[in-house]
Amino acid sequence: MTRPDDALSTLRVALGERSYPIHIGPGLLGDPQWLTPHLAGRQVMVVTNETVAPLYLSRLRQGLGDDLDVRELVLPDGEATKTLASVERIWDALLEAGFNRRCTLVALGGGVIGDMVGFAAACYQRGVAFVQVPTTLLSQVDSSVGGKTGVNHPRGKNMIGAFWQPRAVLIDTDTLSTLPARELSAGLAEVIKYGLIRDADFLAWLEANMAALRGLEATALTRAIERSCSLKAEIVAEDETEQGVRALLNLGHTFGHAIETHQGYGRWLHGEAVGTGMLMAAELSQRLGWLEAADVARIRAILAAADLPLAAPVDMTPEDFLAIMRLDKKNLDDRLRLILLERLGEACVHDRTPPERLVALLEAFPRR
Amino acid sequence: MTRPDDALSTLRVALGERSYPIHIGPGLLGDPQWLTPHLAGRQVMVVTNETVAPLYLSRLRQGLGDDLDVRELVLPDGEATKTLASVERIWDALLEAGFNRRCTLVALGGGVIGDMVGFAAACYQRGVAFVQVPTTLLSQVDSSVGGKTGVNHPRGKNMIGAFWQPRAVLIDTDTLSTLPARELSAGLAEVIKYGLIRDADFLAWLEANMAALRGLEATALTRAIERSCSLKAEIVAEDETEQGVRALLNLGHTFGHAIETHQGYGRWLHGEAVGTGMLMAAELSQRLGWLEAADVARIRAILAAADLPLAAPVDMTPEDFLAIMRLDKKNLDDRLRLILLERLGEACVHDRTPPERLVALLEAFPRR
Repeated sequence: MTRPDDALSTLRVALGERSYPIHIGPGLLGDPQWLTPHLAGRQVMVVTNETVAPLYLSRLRQGLGDDLDVRELVLPDGEATKTLASVERIWDALLEAGFNRRCTLVALGGGVIGDMVGFAAACYQRGVAFVQVPTTLLSQVDSSVGGKTGVNHPRGKNMIGAFWQPRAVLIDTDTLSTLPARELSAGLAEVIKYGLIRDADFLAWLEANMAALRGLEATALTRAIERSCSLKAEIVAEDETEQGVRALLNLGHTFGHAIETHQGYGRWLHGEAVGTGMLMAAELSQRLGWLEAADVARIRAILAAADLPLAAPVDMTPEDFLAIMRLDKKNLDDRLRLILLERLGEACVHDRTPPERLVALLEAFPRR
Repeated sequence: MTRPDDALSTLRVALGERSYPIHIGPGLLGDPQWLTPHLAGRQVMVVTNETVAPLYLSRLRQGLGDDLDVRELVLPDGEATKTLASVERIWDALLEAGFNRRCTLVALGGGVIGDMVGFAAACYQRGVAFVQVPTTLLSQVDSSVGGKTGVNHPRGKNMIGAFWQPRAVLIDTDTLSTLPARELSAGLAEVIKYGLIRDADFLAWLEANMAALRGLEATALTRAIERSCSLKAEIVAEDETEQGVRALLNLGHTFGHAIETHQGYGRWLHGEAVGTGMLMAAELSQRLGWLEAADVARIRAILAAADLPLAAPVDMTPEDFLAIMRLDKKNLDDRLRLILLERLGEACVHDRTPPERLVALLEAFPRR
């Protein structure tokens, strides 16, 4: 396999003794040099789902070499499986295999698999090693950094979980070739987010390279994923447990979360809802006098180029938004905190938005 | 209430930004100065069990003052309730109450309550504050330090859990007045353990003060609890995640765990099994030429003074011990690691015990 140097990159997430590498590029899955150095011992449990298993499980096993005690657990696919019951299945499998504290869990799949396996690793015998092998663009640029793991509860998303860092993250860009176009777009929403909140040059690079990214050009993908992870790593290093600047990563998420909740999880993809949410945050920022109309037009254009929705659900009233946003767990002590844009490439936390400005935005924003 | 100065003590567990105080003495429960400074916000969930609630819940609520949003959850008593299902009840109650990341969980009860509530706090919204109010001697000297939380799995004790530090520990020695004598003795086994593994002077002090401790003299209790917590804190500070010296805290635990497992949990109290296990470890240490017969006699005498069992279960063969000990999760990669005594006040990890010496000890050790 040819592997141009500029399509292969390693980023180090600096967290003291919990630092770890993110390897990015094509062809990583089948090559033992990437995965085996990060195993804690001989016992390895690969957890994946029914969609990913037939595509990549055998290639990953190839990348594990022989000489190891490797078990597999294949869970159903989808956000609906992100429950404590699924994590219990992982714990049951580990105990049935007699795995001890030196075992390693490998999460092969998207964000749901990564979050569940990370949480299972965080709490198995009070914490064992895990390696993430994210296979969707969203999980590659979002879950690779930050150590957030967990599951949903009937009363809310991600309510049960832990901060737990992987030993390594392996991002094989070849896995994006089987990703549905809609999920690729949803992942691009998060990539665009990093440019919007912290790096105007990266935003401009994305505007210029959106066609290459949607065409899955390896060099462009590696560059976009690396820069996204790098920006997130900078933010997380400043604020590992989400007390301050890390909140900026939630640009578009409060609006987006309201859309996801109102529509029922699964109707909108997370990245799609975040994309629309970012446009709502941008338009509110314009109403507050921070962004120019031309800035908002650029945001609308790049979201359109990524084939993301530019309108909120037609059946969602301003009251629907407000009711759900006030329940958001990020709103400590009942004060509505929003992430807004001071300019392109610079976000801020704002908890003094006049309610009438917010309502005006919610009324005026297009529906479809 | 009179409170002699020497019956009141505060110990600080030094863990960087996660450092916390342990307050020890009579009359702490009903006095707001001890609990309220450690709350993260206004939302407080007190979790206790059906045995402790009628004895101390109203006194604790008094110590919380007014002005707070306090909820209560009363779980059944006993090791059998130390399950993920119980922890889910805590999470359900927190979500039903609408509690956010600034809530505080208060664990009022013994080790089971402390372990479950600590684990619930560790994983609720990826970690919230908790305060421990241990009401048994065992939990006061064992669970107050170390940050171990978790629940049992049908396949093993404490298999699911996390390391999570409390904001503070409140040890009201008055709560020991309602503790059954057998549980007091079980707690004393752990107190004696600290002397055996690390502090020969403390061991001598315990020999001289055993009657005062069993008579619940406040000054003696405070001294014994403080020294125990202090010794454990020294060890944990050296080794927070149990890779090295912390293993010494398991003196007597491998043998004891075998007794508990064989007899079925609940037949022997944990401390009783550990007491007998320590005597077994001492006799094995003598067989290896480390302890003198007089040392072992002192150990036997102080365990007897604490009214602890000095013989293993009559129906337990050497083969029973070996079969269970080899499954112990502390035996990484199938090598049997035992904690033994080099001399009184000094323990070591030993993984080179000749199997025939161990079998000889198991055959010769008294049964009852």
